[in-house]
Amino acid sequence: MATRTYDSSLPPLPSTDFDPGLPRAHPPSTSQTSDPDCPFCHISSVFPPYNPASPPPSTSPLLNPALTAPQPSTFLVLSTPHLVAFLDIMPLSLGHILLCPRPHRPKLTDVTPAESAELGRYLRVLSAAVVKATGVGDWNVVQNNGAAAAQVVPHMHFHVIPRPELRDQRSERFTATMFGRGQRDELDEGEAEGLAERVRRAVAEVLRADEEGGWKL
Amino acid sequence: MATRTYDSSLPPLPSTDFDPGLPRAHPPSTSQTSDPDCPFCHISSVFPPYNPASPPPSTSPLLNPALTAPQPSTFLVLSTPHLVAFLDIMPLSLGHILLCPRPHRPKLTDVTPAESAELGRYLRVLSAAVVKATGVGDWNVVQNNGAAAAQVVPHMHFHVIPRPELRDQRSERFTATMFGRGQRDELDEGEAEGLAERVRRAVAEVLRADEEGGWKL
Repeated sequence: MATRTYDSSLPPLPSTDFDPGLPRAHPPSTSQTSDPDCPFCHISSVFPPYNPASPPPSTSPLLNPALTAPQPSTFLVLSTPHLVAFLDIMPLSLGHILLCPRPHRPKLTDVTPAESAELGRYLRVLSAAVVKATGVGDWNVVQNNGAAAAQVVPHMHFHVIPRPELRDQRSERFTATMFGRGQRDELDEGEAEGLAERVRRAVAEVLRADEEGGWKL
Repeated sequence: MATRTYDSSLPPLPSTDFDPGLPRAHPPSTSQTSDPDCPFCHISSVFPPYNPASPPPSTSPLLNPALTAPQPSTFLVLSTPHLVAFLDIMPLSLGHILLCPRPHRPKLTDVTPAESAELGRYLRVLSAAVVKATGVGDWNVVQNNGAAAAQVVPHMHFHVIPRPELRDQRSERFTATMFGRGQRDELDEGEAEGLAERVRRAVAEVLRADEEGGWKL
């Protein structure tokens, strides 16, 4: 059967920077790649990339949470040429982070093929890092597209949300607020600084372990 | 600053089949790559890969939904050497699909780096295909890890869930059932066959458009 002879190789990713002319799955909702009113574009614009396998110390001005002032402080956990990730300012649990592409992409179908692969790669790395940094082994990954799906900021982002074992009542509230309803707590900025540093260090550990081939299946 | 000179190239994916010795982010919950009791391993084992840019006709025995008998019928929408995707048998909405790696990987941190990139790549393609096939432009992507996060089948999977505009009461129920509580409807098998075919065709269209560079940013 012809299907049996289908080439099983994975498509190569571009080895250089993204070609901005890469094809799109979908007509773009907007043709701009940076939106002056978008808080996530603002975060992308003020934090330069760093090597995630060797992050700067938390005292570095490159990680200064106040760089996004007068907007809320930003506690960065990842900054690559293509992606940024940071603590959610209204976390559902300790360690709740967001991962998004640097350019302004309203929905998942607006990212380039190469960006989608890079998002997938770092979802795994950040999940492992959040588990290490929080000690919580269960978590949800959520990504909402459009108002009917409870998307609030129209710059696509994945949520990684640790799920500590909660007593029933808090668990009900947790589910109810997962899609934007109900009350969420504001980020404790004192706690956030140490937490973000633990996540950045854990990202570096995961990337180095991947590089070194530490675990085998 | 050193961070400014960080190499911005994307890491290459392996160009051949996955090396089973690829490093892991996390000690594996299980060392086996196929679990005889896992329904998703069963689906992976009975459906061979096909070229997603040129899927077989729905009359092909390769797509026979009854291949998974005596387990529930499976309506395949994607089958590559590394991934399978199919209609959820208890959909939250029309077009609710699941995407998972072929090998048995309990959580997102159990997939290989190459698999995680491939999952990211096809999340975008399948999202665009589900939008095309259902005409519903808003959707959620959800992936649950562990019992506290409402994971039911311990073989990691992404949900892609269209979110049609619903009246308030149904919308409340929708959110409540998103994480496994409450009632979900069983898949209508008559409807499912045509729907799965529309999604497979839409996947092929998206991949061909990507290949041809149809849209520019």
